[in-house]
Amino acid sequence: MSDLVTRVLAGERRALARALTLAENGGPEGQALLAAIYPHTGRAHVVGVTGPPGGGKSSLVNALARIFRQQGKTVAIVAVDPTSPYTGGAVMGDRIRMRDHAGDPGVFIRSMASRGSLGGLATATGDVVTLFDGAGFDLVLVETVGAGQVEVDIAREAHTTIVIEAPGLGDEIQAIKAGLLEIADIFVVNKADREGAQHAARALQMNLELGHKGTSTWMPPVLQTIATTGQGVNELADAILQHRTMLEQTGEWQARIKARLNDELRHILQRELFNHFMARLGPTTYAAVLDQVVARAVDPYTAASKLLTAEP
Amino acid sequence: MSDLVTRVLAGERRALARALTLAENGGPEGQALLAAIYPHTGRAHVVGVTGPPGGGKSSLVNALARIFRQQGKTVAIVAVDPTSPYTGGAVMGDRIRMRDHAGDPGVFIRSMASRGSLGGLATATGDVVTLFDGAGFDLVLVETVGAGQVEVDIAREAHTTIVIEAPGLGDEIQAIKAGLLEIADIFVVNKADREGAQHAARALQMNLELGHKGTSTWMPPVLQTIATTGQGVNELADAILQHRTMLEQTGEWQARIKARLNDELRHILQRELFNHFMARLGPTTYAAVLDQVVARAVDPYTAASKLLTAEP
Repeated sequence: MSDLVTRVLAGERRALARALTLAENGGPEGQALLAAIYPHTGRAHVVGVTGPPGGGKSSLVNALARIFRQQGKTVAIVAVDPTSPYTGGAVMGDRIRMRDHAGDPGVFIRSMASRGSLGGLATATGDVVTLFDGAGFDLVLVETVGAGQVEVDIAREAHTTIVIEAPGLGDEIQAIKAGLLEIADIFVVNKADREGAQHAARALQMNLELGHKGTSTWMPPVLQTIATTGQGVNELADAILQHRTMLEQTGEWQARIKARLNDELRHILQRELFNHFMARLGPTTYAAVLDQVVARAVDPYTAASKLLTAEP
Repeated sequence: MSDLVTRVLAGERRALARALTLAENGGPEGQALLAAIYPHTGRAHVVGVTGPPGGGKSSLVNALARIFRQQGKTVAIVAVDPTSPYTGGAVMGDRIRMRDHAGDPGVFIRSMASRGSLGGLATATGDVVTLFDGAGFDLVLVETVGAGQVEVDIAREAHTTIVIEAPGLGDEIQAIKAGLLEIADIFVVNKADREGAQHAARALQMNLELGHKGTSTWMPPVLQTIATTGQGVNELADAILQHRTMLEQTGEWQARIKARLNDELRHILQRELFNHFMARLGPTTYAAVLDQVVARAVDPYTAASKLLTAEP
């Protein structure tokens, strides 16, 4: 184990791959590993990339990684797909990404697809970020497909959150956008060569000004990119680095880390408390009470109270 | 309170509106109300409607409600938007819906938009369904915007889950679809007059056959609709009622209820256990340990273990 820790901290790819699997499995070995790596973390810039489907997130993350590599920075990409446990999405995206960065030791790509508990997926993402951070990656780009609460939670793990949109995604997506408006540090209208891009950027800018999202130290910029040609991606990379500088100068860097670790600690406590409780209670008692709920003899809230007070 | 219960059970709209608000607020009054209503539930057919954005879910739910009303059934619509806490989406959709069903006492529409804990939103949805069930609605249609894990969780609350798609929604949405494939009892390709609808339906059918999703008692049908003209919506309503008949004949109706109540009971227990734990622990101890985690002196897992054993 201590050999594995040393090799991960040295940034060895095969050791890192094994460590990621151990951490994802979530057993005691994974936890011991994370505990050993943890004191060596806190340097990586974690960038969350989210937004509604169809915006071209994967292509843009790819293009960003190329720019950062040209600047001599190392980049880890974590692609989280909470909707697609077995098939399609994450894995296919990976293949394209891996082809683009094949043979570059400064890029490491990991996809996560899980239908487990939601808190579980956010916690697991945190663990993966810890390992990349410990292995010395300068940037960790966390990309989430979809636009639900869990994606917002995962993006919130980041120091810098980028919300990507594209013109012409329809009305329902405008509604989703409203929920994303508040979490963005940087907005990107991708596919900027398409009809409606200017309009989308102006609408975003107006919403921002109406919502008073900006502070005296940071007003989220609205950038336009074409990921497939690389247009505007340099400016996006610059904005990300400027955001980091601002975070460090204002003390917000530390505040965001604290908020994230608070979430992680709570998730772990919730899970452990429940597992311990169920182990003490035993399956028979639980099953008997559930049967009463199913028979409509007692409602779920009263049943929960009963179980909590009946606990040995 | 007992007066409110009586009036909700009698299906009085104003009492129901007040009960829904009490339940959503989550206080002791709401819980007492739910406990009193609960024994009178278990009759409503809960239908989950989900799918990627842009598929036309709201229009189709509206069209379905009209058909069920023509059959003399009462319909409650619960529109859940986990992404849009303050603005836009759910509320705008509501206005359109309300206009369509204005003055019809057999339709009740409630939208829910919350950025609280995810388990919380699923639990709250369960509470709202309980109230509609107790108030005597024949069908409760639960519509979720988006396509993340929470939407899948909420759809899972249902006896019958409908996944709605539309042609031409792009590659990323195809990936999301993969995650939805396993939860659908009925597939709908909406906007069937658009180019690519036949192709989308055939692709779904093929995926279904490859995935062996069907059982000897139910093979999910792939239907085509045009919500705006009503085309195919009668067939969809028929399929929903056929699915209910199958569930009842096979005992699956009861099994799905049990799975849902198991989820609800676990969510409530998790929340209560954590709240009790934090109250016993006190904020000072928690804050001190969090500070150690932030300082990288101890990792989150070890910190959680410490807190769990330090508990008075």
